[in-house]
Formats: sequence, structure tokens, C-alpha cells
Amino acid sequence: MGLIGGGVGSLIGPVHRIAAELDGRIALVAGTFSSDPQRSVQSGESYGVDPARAYASVDDMLAGEAGRPDGIELVAIATPNHLHLSAAQAALAAGLAVISEKPATATLAEAEALSRSVQWSGRPYALAYTYTGFPMVREARRQVAAGAIGRVRKVVVEFSQGWLAVAMEALGSKQAGWRVDPEKSGIGGCIADLGTHAFNLAEFVTGDQVAEVMADLGSVVDGRRLDDDAAVLLRFSNGARGVLIASQIATGEASSVQLKVYGDVGALSWDLKTPDQLLLSRLDGGIEVLVEDAVKLARTAQRAAALPGAFAPLILAFADIYRDFADVLVGDGDGTYLQGVDAGLRGMAFVERSVLASREQHGWTELSV
Amino acid sequence: MGLIGGGVGSLIGPVHRIAAELDGRIALVAGTFSSDPQRSVQSGESYGVDPARAYASVDDMLAGEAGRPDGIELVAIATPNHLHLSAAQAALAAGLAVISEKPATATLAEAEALSRSVQWSGRPYALAYTYTGFPMVREARRQVAAGAIGRVRKVVVEFSQGWLAVAMEALGSKQAGWRVDPEKSGIGGCIADLGTHAFNLAEFVTGDQVAEVMADLGSVVDGRRLDDDAAVLLRFSNGARGVLIASQIATGEASSVQLKVYGDVGALSWDLKTPDQLLLSRLDGGIEVLVEDAVKLARTAQRAAALPGAFAPLILAFADIYRDFADVLVGDGDGTYLQGVDAGLRGMAFVERSVLASREQHGWTELSV
Amino acid sequence: MGLIGGGVGSLIGPVHRIAAELDGRIALVAGTFSSDPQRSVQSGESYGVDPARAYASVDDMLAGEAGRPDGIELVAIATPNHLHLSAAQAALAAGLAVISEKPATATLAEAEALSRSVQWSGRPYALAYTYTGFPMVREARRQVAAGAIGRVRKVVVEFSQGWLAVAMEALGSKQAGWRVDPEKSGIGGCIADLGTHAFNLAEFVTGDQVAEVMADLGSVVDGRRLDDDAAVLLRFSNGARGVLIASQIATGEASSVQLKVYGDVGALSWDLKTPDQLLLSRLDGGIEVLVEDAVKLARTAQRAAALPGAFAPLILAFADIYRDFADVLVGDGDGTYLQGVDAGLRGMAFVERSVLASREQHGWTELSV
Amino acid sequence: MGLIGGGVGSLIGPVHRIAAELDGRIALVAGTFSSDPQRSVQSGESYGVDPARAYASVDDMLAGEAGRPDGIELVAIATPNHLHLSAAQAALAAGLAVISEKPATATLAEAEALSRSVQWSGRPYALAYTYTGFPMVREARRQVAAGAIGRVRKVVVEFSQGWLAVAMEALGSKQAGWRVDPEKSGIGGCIADLGTHAFNLAEFVTGDQVAEVMADLGSVVDGRRLDDDAAVLLRFSNGARGVLIASQIATGEASSVQLKVYGDVGALSWDLKTPDQLLLSRLDGGIEVLVEDAVKLARTAQRAAALPGAFAPLILAFADIYRDFADVLVGDGDGTYLQGVDAGLRGMAFVERSVLASREQHGWTELSV
Repeated sequence: MGLIGGGVGSLIGPVHRIAAELDGRIALVAGTFSSDPQRSVQSGESYGVDPARAYASVDDMLAGEAGRPDGIELVAIATPNHLHLSAAQAALAAGLAVISEKPATATLAEAEALSRSVQWSGRPYALAYTYTGFPMVREARRQVAAGAIGRVRKVVVEFSQGWLAVAMEALGSKQAGWRVDPEKSGIGGCIADLGTHAFNLAEFVTGDQVAEVMADLGSVVDGRRLDDDAAVLLRFSNGARGVLIASQIATGEASSVQLKVYGDVGALSWDLKTPDQLLLSRLDGGIEVLVEDAVKLARTAQRAAALPGAFAPLILAFADIYRDFADVLVGDGDGTYLQGVDAGLRGMAFVERSVLASREQHGWTELSV
Repeated sequence: MGLIGGGVGSLIGPVHRIAAELDGRIALVAGTFSSDPQRSVQSGESYGVDPARAYASVDDMLAGEAGRPDGIELVAIATPNHLHLSAAQAALAAGLAVISEKPATATLAEAEALSRSVQWSGRPYALAYTYTGFPMVREARRQVAAGAIGRVRKVVVEFSQGWLAVAMEALGSKQAGWRVDPEKSGIGGCIADLGTHAFNLAEFVTGDQVAEVMADLGSVVDGRRLDDDAAVLLRFSNGARGVLIASQIATGEASSVQLKVYGDVGALSWDLKTPDQLLLSRLDGGIEVLVEDAVKLARTAQRAAALPGAFAPLILAFADIYRDFADVLVGDGDGTYLQGVDAGLRGMAFVERSVLASREQHGWTELSV
Repeated sequence: MGLIGGGVGSLIGPVHRIAAELDGRIALVAGTFSSDPQRSVQSGESYGVDPARAYASVDDMLAGEAGRPDGIELVAIATPNHLHLSAAQAALAAGLAVISEKPATATLAEAEALSRSVQWSGRPYALAYTYTGFPMVREARRQVAAGAIGRVRKVVVEFSQGWLAVAMEALGSKQAGWRVDPEKSGIGGCIADLGTHAFNLAEFVTGDQVAEVMADLGSVVDGRRLDDDAAVLLRFSNGARGVLIASQIATGEASSVQLKVYGDVGALSWDLKTPDQLLLSRLDGGIEVLVEDAVKLARTAQRAAALPGAFAPLILAFADIYRDFADVLVGDGDGTYLQGVDAGLRGMAFVERSVLASREQHGWTELSV
Repeated sequence: MGLIGGGVGSLIGPVHRIAAELDGRIALVAGTFSSDPQRSVQSGESYGVDPARAYASVDDMLAGEAGRPDGIELVAIATPNHLHLSAAQAALAAGLAVISEKPATATLAEAEALSRSVQWSGRPYALAYTYTGFPMVREARRQVAAGAIGRVRKVVVEFSQGWLAVAMEALGSKQAGWRVDPEKSGIGGCIADLGTHAFNLAEFVTGDQVAEVMADLGSVVDGRRLDDDAAVLLRFSNGARGVLIASQIATGEASSVQLKVYGDVGALSWDLKTPDQLLLSRLDGGIEVLVEDAVKLARTAQRAAALPGAFAPLILAFADIYRDFADVLVGDGDGTYLQGVDAGLRGMAFVERSVLASREQHGWTELSV
């Protein structure tokens, strides 16, 4: 696997590396970690990548790797958003599989272009929507599909962080810098960074699609050009209502991710604070706390080098996504839980329509793509 | 004190009685518990009220009590909403003080009429917005006013119940029956029953007013004529944004009341599940858990017949509102925390404007009164 | 009902009054609130008790009330421990029923004397072991009895408070004063004040008896003559092991009461912080959160003047004990859940044997009574 | 690094690998994964270890690696307990550094022998007491040392699991098999497996030593020859009291690790469920929730390949121990937080004295080593 972006100073790069390698089938052996050749080599070394395979551009990497008998077969994209499309298209054109950070692209138009590229290439493409990798989020989806809560009526989903409550970008934070910059982040700020996670989580678990949105986005911190706080009312195709809250200025919150799905005979509740639990409430107020069962955990543990299920939830969630992707690459498994380019397209439609809806201050806006 | 409504089968009647009497200064001695004289006497007996003072109409009670040397000086109104205005006006006209269940009235026009009646009468009037009686909610208000979290940027407030997720009204529930009936509840269903609490909590703690709303109300359970689920986006006068969630169909929730207020240097969080705690978060993610301090509790405990602070949060909150009201009646204390007819008026504006905003599906609607 | 003790400044007095009266069948109409006649009258007034029925001694009260057609039929004892025996014996001898604060007496010998008095008198006697009144504690007992967790293997029970982490007795606290005074509290300090609650809870829920104890009690705060911290290892008759922790010097704890019962096929967990929940864990780690079901709550709410189940847990628990006691007084109900003089006797055996076991630093000490 | 044990089917092997490699300074390149050569190679492959360096015995590995220019410099021991001593001694004698799973050895006598070997060899030796790697556990130790809670009075520490509530050893579980076998586990079962963690945690955070124990150990599941449940009362050198609970039969518990330390002016509380929080309670009941501050996290994140602090608590804790050990190996840092052979010796004294104390059913037993 080649990593694009994710060099020294990146938060998510190391997570991709560990998650990809956990299962023992994928190894990080090449990368484009920086456009500065020396820095790219330096970052590569921190990952144990051969300096000869630490490139300074995606094109160099694709060319260099194509000439090797042990060249890479897939790339992971962990750059700022504005580089997602070109990196993905180049890799797909070179016949490689692609796993990409969300959001899929910087704009809806780009997502449409990406969608066509994926179709033309016929290569596997997946988005690293981390939360879809959590076993109990997948269980939630199965429970809804199995009718455990009846017809879905109401969804409340929240992803709140507080680290951008101050102008971190002015304090030299590289992580903050590109996220608040329309040139690098695209049309959406918080709505693209956190909102897409929440949106995907809502559609993933309910198995339904959002048909309309009504939004209020704000650029709360002085000088921000992109939104850093968002509230979006949702209407699903089946008639359910939803509230989506995403914020980067929720002072004091590290990463609060919560999902509640209310049906007519039960409700499901999941919270990142206790990720290995899924609460199933009944009409009478009784609650069943669903946990991964011992048998399943044991099976997982039998896989060589598999990490015990109770440890390290977020990395494991990531690793599950990589595992599913590796399965698809070797023609094993149907990728049921993988979020492909369609999810990417929906995510960007959500971002762009919410931005417009908020800007124009009118009511409901359709979300068809 | 005379109680209007709140007879046998009422949930809130007994709470009023206990809360009012806790301090030893107010006693429930009369009431209009039912329009059926026999039932009224029966209910009165359950409260230990002299049968001669258990009346079948408000007018009878006001007349009867006026003729006694030990006649009542205040009434508590615990009827369905459509009777609030007439009961309050009659009592005020008779020179009595009034403490009323929320919402103030059934419609905004009624609230305006009530406001005038209160002003003309010069008599004390207070709304039993329970949550404003909780010591840590009051502390939250003080913290915001003292600048502990800086400028308020974002408010998330939720009041969710699940008991009306099924058509309880069709199963003979008296409590459900009047709440879903426009003739008795007024223009709003859930938005009036739970939304007004959440709205009042948001304005009470921030010390700011909501300037605009954008709303999506639904009548989720088949056959409901009033809303039983509501999501409202808020804009405050100072520029802060807010999300208000109120639901009667949140399957499995008993009574989930949560408030989060995010400022530019800190955040406050209160949850009815742990009512004696107020969380004060800082920018760096550190949290201080504020609790009632020992000194204050000790002082409270010294009052004769005062219930220890750790016990019975909801009744105590109610009792604090009654205590403040009793203070005002004897000319002691300024009623800082009491929610008077202005709060009632704002509540009804919130209800009516939200209903209209949702119905007309347009964007922001002003909330001036 | 006549109240012995529990006057102005008492924490538990008002709780007894409210709990006793909630159901509308018992009324507080007399009392011995102080040995100073004037203070007794003053305290009585705070409860609305006729000054003529606020006595300065138990004997005066028993004599005075015996001469009235509407004289009291039961007494509630809320004095420091050293007065429990004499008050109970006098009331029983006068033919009255007795409900008493725990522990039953100041010493085991006194408890044995009390046991004989109760038997001779044939009058109802019950201890106000508050936690046995909580619906979900009673449910826990039923679950164990029904075999839901299989054979009980391990019990962990804790009652920790922190208010005596400082020498409150030296700061003039009346509540602290008698609790740390062997003349008033008896042979046990914390072990009698909090340990008996924990001990009773363990035996109540498991339906089993502690056969042996091994204990370490400490007088942590300088100058304390009684224990203020206790750890006791338990062995139950059926072979289960237990750990009991009771502390008055657990700095920062308000009132932490927790019970865990592990069986061979499941486990039960109850926490005063969330008193309306009972957690039933299974071998595979799955958890069912048991709550009072809607039907039962509705039935309760139909009783006149009954407080809704979700409100005011501690007072309600107390009220349930009074309700059961009232049932027994009118010959209705079998008092299944009432903790009578046998429980009192066992509690005092636990106190005295634990004190001795700790003092002599030997191993297991039998607990037969 | 060479790994001894930890092959296919091991729970802790993969954790050692990931934790060791996270920092980029240590790599798993050799191992003795099984005494069956083929199985060893197979396990090695799952870790990406060159088949030539997957050995069938420790001696083979030490000899083989000694002959290579790139031979290993340290070993990690992840075998059942009975092999700890011989593996450690062989590695130390070969001049290698050793990081070992706990407990240090199978018996106290072995621990004394190991202690001498470590001293003679002069090589670094550390125990993987996972919980000492958690940032907030280390913070707790600093807070106690800095006097934040005053003089320590009481410690309650618990490590409970439920997976051995059934006879997993009879169901073919390899993990269970050696743990309940005296030949492989040593003198202690649960007390060695979980009790040593809890014991070390108590001494690590308080900075004090346990002077005496009083214990009750049980072999609850039929047929078990070692303890699977333990309760130990502790007395610390400075006079503080403690309660230690360790259980493998706590039905339904995954891994409950909790520590409470009560001092005379404050208290600290840490729970594995929320590992990035440390609660600091004050006398008045106020609580400060301490979290890793942004600055420290940022510093950590700057290290190449460092995993973000909020992710993956247990692996990170492990990684911190490895990082400290790597620091010591390169002569950087003083290993303040490392738990060396002295901690191992104390742990085994705790195990053996607790087993004896429980067996002989007498009172306090000294813990001097």
C-alpha cells in the first residue's frame, strides 16, 4: 500500500498505517508524504518505508511503483480535501484500488467526476468513514434492518469537537490551517469535516436516505471563511425526521459522537464514549445493552495478529474497514459495510445543499443526487 | 392555598401539594378538583382538605373562600391548558396571587390577555417552570452572567419523553387525552408541553432572548392533530445559535432533559439524570463538576422542615419555586428566579411562531412579542 | 403517628413525616421532639403539630395520647441510637406499633432485649432500612429468588460518605456529634450508621445470611473513639463470599451506595445514583436494564396522592416502607419486604462481631444470633 | 526485539508487537513463538518475522541472534508464568534487556532469584504493568506526590473479569487452560493474574507500600485448583487502609478496573471505562475532571508515527511503557514510571502472602520482602 499524505505531524496517517497492517495482509511500503523530497523520505522513515519508495508526488509514486515487481496495489489518501480527487483519479487510472479519507472530494461537482472515474476504472474505491467500522454501529444497522425498533421515526445524530473554539489556525496549527481554508477544504468546513461523518452514520444505520435538509451553518470564530458550526434538520425518504448537529466550536468537547434512532416499537442509542455497547430501548422503558458476544470475539481473536476486541476501539474500527477492503481486493466478501463512491457523492450533496440552504435562509432543500 | 385541577389521577397535583407545603408556610386547604362535586370532595379528602372547601367550580371556590376569615390567599393552577387563562383571571380579579402550570395559556392571544390581567391586578403571578427551581440550573445562570464561559455561542437543549410513542389517548389515558386534544391543549402539542420547558431553560440560563426560530414539527403517531415531535433551530439576540429538541415519541425515554451552553472560553452542561451536578468545561477539555456546597446545604437544612438537599430533586425544585413565591407574598426577596407572565408570554410566542414556521415551511421566523 | 426525635435541625425527621403522610393514611399529629418543652413545641409547629401534642418526653406522650379519643396508634423513632430501645419498649408496652430508625439499638444485648419485647407485645415493629424500599432493590431480591442469576457466588456492597472526613463534631455539627459519641451511638460508629444498611441490603437481596465476618475497622480522624471507616469480608451460609465497604471518611462522596451480586449464570447491579435501574448481566457480557414497568407505575399513580414513580426516589422508598407498614396495621398485606426485629438483631450482631473481629485482629468470626 | 511466547491464539502477543513498534524505535524481528518449529514459523509469519528468525526455543533464539550482526537487543516475555524466570534469566545472561509480562515469576522464591539475576546482569528489566502506562494513572501518582489529596487514608482498588465464571478450561480455551493450572500459573490464580495489577496500581499511585494483608481467596468454579476470586484487606506503611478486589468470576464484567484513593483533603478516582479522565474530589464534594492537556497531547503528536492521544487507550498505555523502556535502552530518561524487578518481587510477595493468609485463616500477615 502507498500512503498519499499522512506524513510527520499528521493525526490520521499513523492510524491508517496501523489499521491497514493489523490484519497482516496489507503493508505500508511506499508513500507520497510531502512535495518536498527530503521531508517525504523523513516521514517515510518514521513508518519504516524504504527511502527509495518515499516519493514527492503522486505521479512519481505511480510511475516508480509501476516499474517494480513488488509495486503497490492500492493507495490510501490522507491529504487535505482539495487533493482527494486528483489523487484518486490518478491511482484509479493506474489500475490501483483506492481507500480515501472523507469527504470524498472538495465539492459536489468533483464528487460527480470521481463517481464517473470509479465506474470507468472498475477498481475498488472505499471511504474511510471510521464509525461504520465499529462493530456496534454495524449491529445497529442490522437491528434496524431486522425490524427491532419497527419503523424509524426520528434520528438525532451529533458530532461535536471543541478544538477550533479558538483560532488554532492563527496559532500555527497545520491541522486547523487546511481545515478552515476554502482552497484546501472545499465548500464546507465543519459540515464537511464532521457533518459528513454524522450524515453517513445516519444513512448507514437507518438504511434510509435523507430527502431534504433545512440548515443553519455559522462561522463563529472571527475571521473564519468556512462554517465551524452546523445544525441541520433532516427529512428521510420514509418520512422520518432528523436533527444533525456538527460543531468544531463546542468548547470542551474532545470528540462527542452520538446517535439515537427512535422507531415505533423501540430505539437504538450508540455513543463513542462507550463504543462497545449498543442500547436497545423498548416502549416500556426497558433497555437491553447489546455487546459483542463472546463467540464472535473469540473467532476474531483466532485470526493471526488480530487485536483483542475490547482494545483500542477506534483503530479497530479503522482496521475493520481495511479488512473489508482487503477482502474485496482478494475477491472474498461482498463489501456490505464498505462506503463506496455513492456514499461519497451523497456526502458531498449533503455538504453543498446544506451550505446553500443555510446561505439562502429558505426552508427545505432537496438532496437528490 | 387553593388548588385548581390536580385531583385524583393527576400526576402533577400531588407534587404541587408537597412542594407548596414543604416549607411550612403554605398549606393546601381548598380546591376545585373536579366539576363533579362528589369527585371534588373525594379528591380533596385524599389531600386532607375539608369537604366543605372542596368546590366544583373556580367561581364557587373564590366566592366560598372570600367569605371565610381563613380564606385562601393564593391559587395553584394545575388544569389542562385551555382553562389556565380563565382560572388565572378569575383569581387575580378576586385579589389572589397565582402560581400556574406551564404553558401560561392555550394561545399567544390568550397570553397577551393574561399579561394585561396580571398588570392590572398588581397581584403576584408565577409559572411553575420546574427546571428553573433546580439549584444547579440557577447556578448555571449565575455562571453565565458572571462570564465563566465567556460569550455564549451555541445552545443545545433537549426534553424528550417516549410515553406518547403509542396512542395512549386511545388506550384511555386521561393524561394523554387532553395533551393531544387541540381543544384542551391549545395550538401546540409537544411544543407547548415540553418545548416551552426547554425554551424557558435556554433563555433562563443564557439570560438572552431567542430572536428567530426555524422549526420542523411533526404529528408522528397516526391520528394526532397536534405535534408530538419538534425540532427548532434558534437564533439568539446576541448572535448565538441554538438547537431545541422536544419529543413525546422518543421511544424508551422517560424524561430526558439536557442543556449545553457553549461559550468562547468555556461550556456548561446540565442533565436531569444527575441534577445536583453542573459541569463547567474549559477550552483545554478540563472539567469542573460544580455541586451545591456544604455551607449552602447546611443553611437550607436549618430551615424547619426543610428536606435535605440530596433528596428528591424534582420535588425540591418545585418547592424552591414555591419558596420564592412565598417570599414574594410576604414581601421578602425580589423573586429573581421566578418566571412571571413575561416568561409566559415568550413561551406562547415560541409555541405559536414555531407552529407557524413549521406549517409554512419557510425559513427564519421572528419571535418578538 | 407520633414522632420521637426528628425535631428542628434533624435531617431524617422531615423525611419520615413526608414519607408517612404521602399515602394519605398516616398523619403526623404528635411528637417528642425535644426534652426541652419549648423546643418541642417549636419543632412541632414546623410540622403543623398541635402544641398540646408536642411533648417533652416519651412517657408524657404515651400518657397524653392514651387519654385522647384520637390518640396515636404508632410511633416513629428518629433519635440517636442509645434512645431506640427505651423508646421502642415504652411504645410497645403502651400497645403502639413502632417504626424505628436503624440500627435497632446501641448494642447487641439491647437488640436481644428488644427482640423479646417485640415478641411479648405482639405489636408490629419495623426498621426503616431505606434501601429496602426502592422498587428496583425489591426487584433484585425477586430476581435472585427466581434464579435469574443462578447460585450467588459473590457480593460486593458499599456505602460511602465523606462528610466526616473532617472533625465535623468539633465544628458544632449536631448530626456528627452524636454519631461519633459512644454514649449515643453505641458500640459501632460507621459500621452501625452505614454498615448496617449495607449488611441489610446484602442479606435482603440475596435472601441468604452472613455466617462469618473478618473485619478491619478504623478510627481515621484524630480523636474519634468510634470507627469511621470499615471493611468487612463476608462468608454467606450458602458459601458465597462478600466484601462490604462502609466509610464516613470517603472524601468527596455524598452518599455512594452500590450493590453487586454475582451468580453463576448472571449478575445484578444496583446503584443509588440511578435508583430506578437494575442491571442484569449475563455470562456473555450482555446487560438488561430493568426498569419499573409502565403498568406498575400507572397502578401506583392511581392511588390518591401517590407521587409519580420517577420523582423523588429516596422519599418514595421511605414511603413504600411506611405504606407496607400501614398495610400491616390495617391487616392488609403480609409485610414481605418489611425488615422487622430479626433484621435488627442481625444488624447488631454484625456491628458487634465486626467490632470485636477487628479489635482482636484474628480471622473469621461467626455471626450466629 | 524478540518475542518469547505470544504466538497464534495469544491475546497479549499482538498488543506487545504493536505497542513496541508504535514509536518506530523497536521492531519485532525474531521470536520463540512455539516449541513446535513449524508453529513458531507460522506465528512468526503472522507478525511478518523472517522464518529464519522464528525459533523453537529460547536458547536457540539467543544463540541464533547472537550470531547475527543485526541480532536482537531485547526480549519481550509473553509466556505463561512458569516460563518467566528461565526465559528472563537466559536473556539477561546473554546480555539482553528484558520486558516481561506480569507476574514476574510463578513463586516468591523465583522472584527472589530473578531479582538477583537482574542485579548481577546489570541489564534493564521491566514489567508490563499496563495500567502504569496510562497518562492519567501517572497523573494520579503525581497528584498524590504533590499533596493534592493530603495524607492518604483509604484505597479501594478493583480488577474484575467474568470470563472464567464458567469452566472455560474444560471448553478448550488455551488462555484459560494455563491460567488455572498451578504447573503453569504458579501459586496464585486470580491473585497473580489480576491481583498483582491491582496491587501494583495501589502502590504505584500512592507511592506507599502495603505492610500487611488479610485475605480471603476462593476457588469458586468446581474443580479449580487455584483461586479465581480474591478479596484482600490492606494496611499501608503510612497507616492507610485498603480493600483490594480481584475476580475472574465476576459474571458479566469484561474488564472492570477501578481505583479510588481517599486523602484527608481530597480524593482521586480513576476508571478504565473512562481512562483519559482522572477525578479529583474535594472535601466539599466538588470534583475536578483532569484530562490530558492540549499542550502535552500536541507534543506527543509531534513525535513521528505517534498515535493521537485520544485513540486506543490500552495499546497506548502499553506503548508508553515500551517508549520509557526504549528511552532507558538508549540512555535517555530515568525510567521513573517503569516497574522493575523490585515491583515484581513485591507483587510475588503479595501473591504468596495472600494465598497463605487466606489458607491459614488467621488475621494480618506481613508483606516485607
